[in-house]
Parts: sequence; structure tokens; C-alpha cells
Amino acid sequence: MKFQTILLVIEVGGTLAFAMSGLLEAIRKRMDIVGVFSVAFVSAFGGGTVRDVLLDRRPLFWVQNQEYVWLVIALVVTAPLWVKTFRHRLTENAMEFADACGLGLFAISGASIASAAGMPPLVAVLMGAITAVFGGVSRDVLCNQIPKVYYDHRPYTLCAVVGCAVFLGANAIGVAQQLSMVVGICTATGLRVLAVIFGWKLPAWPLRKG
Amino acid sequence: MKFQTILLVIEVGGTLAFAMSGLLEAIRKRMDIVGVFSVAFVSAFGGGTVRDVLLDRRPLFWVQNQEYVWLVIALVVTAPLWVKTFRHRLTENAMEFADACGLGLFAISGASIASAAGMPPLVAVLMGAITAVFGGVSRDVLCNQIPKVYYDHRPYTLCAVVGCAVFLGANAIGVAQQLSMVVGICTATGLRVLAVIFGWKLPAWPLRKG
Amino acid sequence: MKFQTILLVIEVGGTLAFAMSGLLEAIRKRMDIVGVFSVAFVSAFGGGTVRDVLLDRRPLFWVQNQEYVWLVIALVVTAPLWVKTFRHRLTENAMEFADACGLGLFAISGASIASAAGMPPLVAVLMGAITAVFGGVSRDVLCNQIPKVYYDHRPYTLCAVVGCAVFLGANAIGVAQQLSMVVGICTATGLRVLAVIFGWKLPAWPLRKG
Repeated sequence: MKFQTILLVIEVGGTLAFAMSGLLEAIRKRMDIVGVFSVAFVSAFGGGTVRDVLLDRRPLFWVQNQEYVWLVIALVVTAPLWVKTFRHRLTENAMEFADACGLGLFAISGASIASAAGMPPLVAVLMGAITAVFGGVSRDVLCNQIPKVYYDHRPYTLCAVVGCAVFLGANAIGVAQQLSMVVGICTATGLRVLAVIFGWKLPAWPLRKG
Repeated sequence: MKFQTILLVIEVGGTLAFAMSGLLEAIRKRMDIVGVFSVAFVSAFGGGTVRDVLLDRRPLFWVQNQEYVWLVIALVVTAPLWVKTFRHRLTENAMEFADACGLGLFAISGASIASAAGMPPLVAVLMGAITAVFGGVSRDVLCNQIPKVYYDHRPYTLCAVVGCAVFLGANAIGVAQQLSMVVGICTATGLRVLAVIFGWKLPAWPLRKG
Repeated sequence: MKFQTILLVIEVGGTLAFAMSGLLEAIRKRMDIVGVFSVAFVSAFGGGTVRDVLLDRRPLFWVQNQEYVWLVIALVVTAPLWVKTFRHRLTENAMEFADACGLGLFAISGASIASAAGMPPLVAVLMGAITAVFGGVSRDVLCNQIPKVYYDHRPYTLCAVVGCAVFLGANAIGVAQQLSMVVGICTATGLRVLAVIFGWKLPAWPLRKG
């Protein structure tokens, strides 16, 4: 597979995972179909759009690949057929896992695009984190709540940051581009899954005694 | 009239209508003059600014046409003279109608600019919807509430989408640009007005039984 | 000192002041380290990033000057060492003063960059105000509250507007660029400090009788 193909697969996977998280959150807020579509759309494309705007890339990735937009439309239109399955206890777990996949996929996609655009490592890591997290942050802002990733004290953005650092590090020591990306994605998504399963907690900030 | 002139008239009309909706909402939230101006400004220019940024058009439309900014400043400064008229029952209706006009005007303006920039129909429709709705969404986010268009179950964005589709369709079958725009605007604004008068409702999503 | 050096000093000072305001607000909301860093980052770089995007300047100022990002990281990482000092009564005052410094520094930086990019005075003033205020507005939106600057009825954005106007006016009548900037910054920051000390109030809008 070529680099372009890998990027495409990454973006499709991440897009679907994040659109689903937006869709489920919008339904929970009892929005109408327009709200559900808008929040799903922003969750899926928000991070990548901000990355493209900050890096001044045009056309935007969802303009160049319209299939993504159709995918999200299909996801929303078919929601009544499969959403019931996600009710009850399953909902939380499904959203966690979709989020973890999107997290890893989007982070490495953002970091690799920024890196290919000549950005230094620090900026590439930040772009990876922004790509991964900004869709979810926008989703929560539109749903009128403090972004979950800012206060739940469970590692999320940090997993993306570590994954991006691993990807860039592997690349820097000569590992092939494709393998570096796979390793980075697995690191970010895997760390997030482990964090959820084992209930890892970040300390409050600043550290408090007593 | 030339195409440019039509676009100008459309943008002035839509700008004033949306600025007024932001102004009334900010007053309702008891903001000070800076808040009122900021929310009016974002409501009026938010959608068009995001459209211009996403399409990478510079200078921004309100930079190129500073008269728009002066118009909004004049609107806010003169507000104490005419806002009382909009109190009581009239307020809701005035805001609904201003919104409906802005909706149609901005949607077709966004779709026609995107179309002229070579965007495919799906993207042009999305740009039309974003131009029409994003100002109002930003207004509600700044006022710390869930965007009204996402949960009130009355067709709003859908009217913009249908209007854009009618405009693009008419254009595609050879109707003159100007006539297509007028038809698209009337479709979007007219549908919205009818939706308000007759109380049309969107179904909850996903469809629920019982 | 050259113009570039002055701009650099201005941006470093403003960045630190605004990052601190975001950091203190995020801690108050009991966010975790990722939330604290994100809100500090957005508070510090939000205004300048929006200015750069609206004026289509790339690379963004924090991409070109990565030291800024390291500064904010250092600020957040060392927060536990010095934040306690800002507890109790001091917090409010510290945040007010940091805000006032950032206000003047960012406003004149935004206006001078816009002016150097050939923008007319009205747009330069607006860009100055956006650069100064947008970071704080984003901070409040992320913290799920109505932007403080919109409703607290104390002059804040207006101080930035007056400072920018003084800077542009001084420049227009032939005062040296550097002196104009210093005068503009002192005007904006000084007005804000006076407003806080003497409790100046903006009238509600629209003006109400009785």
C-alpha cells in the first residue's frame, strides 16, 4: 500500500468513529435530525478541518474526499436501524471504544501531515493532538458542556501525545513511514483502552496535599 | 444588475437580519454594549467568515466591504431608539422573520460563492448551510446555550439546504444565474416562514415508538 | 531595538499574561492537567491564531516562535510551585492585572500587524480587539460560561479599542512606530487598570429608564 492509501484508510476510520461519538451524544441531548447531523459532522470533521486551516491546506480533506461526507450522512440516516443496539449498558463502552480508535487514527494522521508539511516535532505533536481532540471538544461545546477531555482526569489527550511522539521518534530513527504510523496508532489507541479498562487517573492540577 | 451587485444586496440584507437577531439575543441576556456589539457582529459575520476561511478567500467579505461593519455599528448604536418597539409579543415574531430572511439570503450567497469557486454540488450545499447557520450557532454558543437550530425540531437548516439545492438545480438546467438565486432565496425563506406559521415539526431522531 | 524585536517582546509578554489567566480559570474549574494546559494554550494563543487565520498569515506566530509554546508548557508544569501564592484574596487581583497587561499588549500587536498588512483603520482596530479578546472569550466558552467581557459592564474591550485608535492615530500624525506602540499599549492597559480600581461601569444596553 502506498502512503496515500494508508492516510485514506486512517481518515475514513477516524471519521466514522468520531461521527458516531457525536451522533450518540446528540441523540442523548434529544436533538433533532439537523442537530444530530451537525454534531456528528463537527465531531468527525472538526479536528481535521482545524488542522487543515492552521496548516493552510486546501482543499479541505472532506472537500477533496466527498465520500467522507456521504459516509456521515449514511451513518445518520441509518441510525434508527442500529442505535437501539447501543442503548442500555453497551452505550458507554461503545462510545469509549469508538473514541479510542478515532483518537489514535486522527492523532497520527495529524502529526504525519504536519510533519510532511515541514513542521518541527513540537508543532507536529500539537497538530496531532488538535486533530484528535478538537472534534470532541467542539462536540461538547455545541452540546453546552465543558469538554469531557478537560476534566475527567483520565488520560486521553496524553495518549494521543505519546502516540505522536512514538510515531515521530520511530520515524526519526529510520523506521519505515508505514510501520511508524501503525506503531504510533497502536500506542495511542492501546494506551487509551488500557486507561479505560484499568481506570488510570491523572492527578488534579496543581497537586494538592491533604 | 450585474452578478456582483446582486451578491452585494444579498450580503447587506442577510448581514442586517442576522446582526439584529444577535443584538436582540444579547440584550435578552442583559449583556453590556460590548457584548451586544460582539454577539451582533459574530451573528452577522460568523457564517460568512467561516465560509471565506474554509474556501480560503481573502480579503474577508467584511474587510473588503467595510460598509457592513459600519452598518452593524449603526444598528447597535441606534438600538435604544427602536428596540422598545420589538418588546412584548412582537419580539419573537420579529426575530423569526429576520432569521428567515437571513437564512435564505446567506444560504444562497454561500452556495453560489462555493459553486463559483469550483466546489462540487454537495460541498456547495454544505457551504450554503454553514454560511446560513454558523452565525446563529456561534451566537448561541457565546450566549452559553445549545444552538437553537439543533433541538427545536422545526425545519431551519433543512430550508437552507432545500433552497441551495433548488438554486443549484435551476442553475444546472440552464436557468439564468440571477433568476436561480432569486428562486433559491424565495424557496429557503418561504419554506422557513411556512414552517413557523404552520408549526411544522421534524421527527425526533432516531424515530421512537411508544 | 528593531520593530521585529518589539513585536517579539510584546507577544511574549501578552502570551504569558493570558496563559496565566487561562491556567487560573481552569484550576478554578478543577480541570486535570490536560484541561489546564489546553485552556492556558487557547487563552494565550487563541486571539493571535484567529488574527493570523483571518489575515491569512502563515506560519502561525506560535509555530514560527516555538519558544512561546515551551513557555506555556513551563508555566503549566511549574504551576504547583507558585499557584498557592495566588490563592485567597490575591487571585482576583492577580488575574485582573495579568489580563490588563495582556489586553494592551495583544491589542496593539494585532492592530500593528493588521495595519502592516495594509488593512484600513477600522479593520485594524477590530483585529486588535479580536487579538486581545478572543483568547479570553475562547477560555470562557471552553469553561462553559458566557464570556465575562460581554456582561460584566466594566470597560475591557473598549480599552483595547481606544488603545488601538490612539496607536493608529499617533502613527498617522507621524509619531515613530515604536513610540506609537508604547503609547497605545499604555493607554489600553492603563485605562483598564483605572477602570478596575475606580469601578467604572458601562451602561446597560439599550439604555433603560426607571
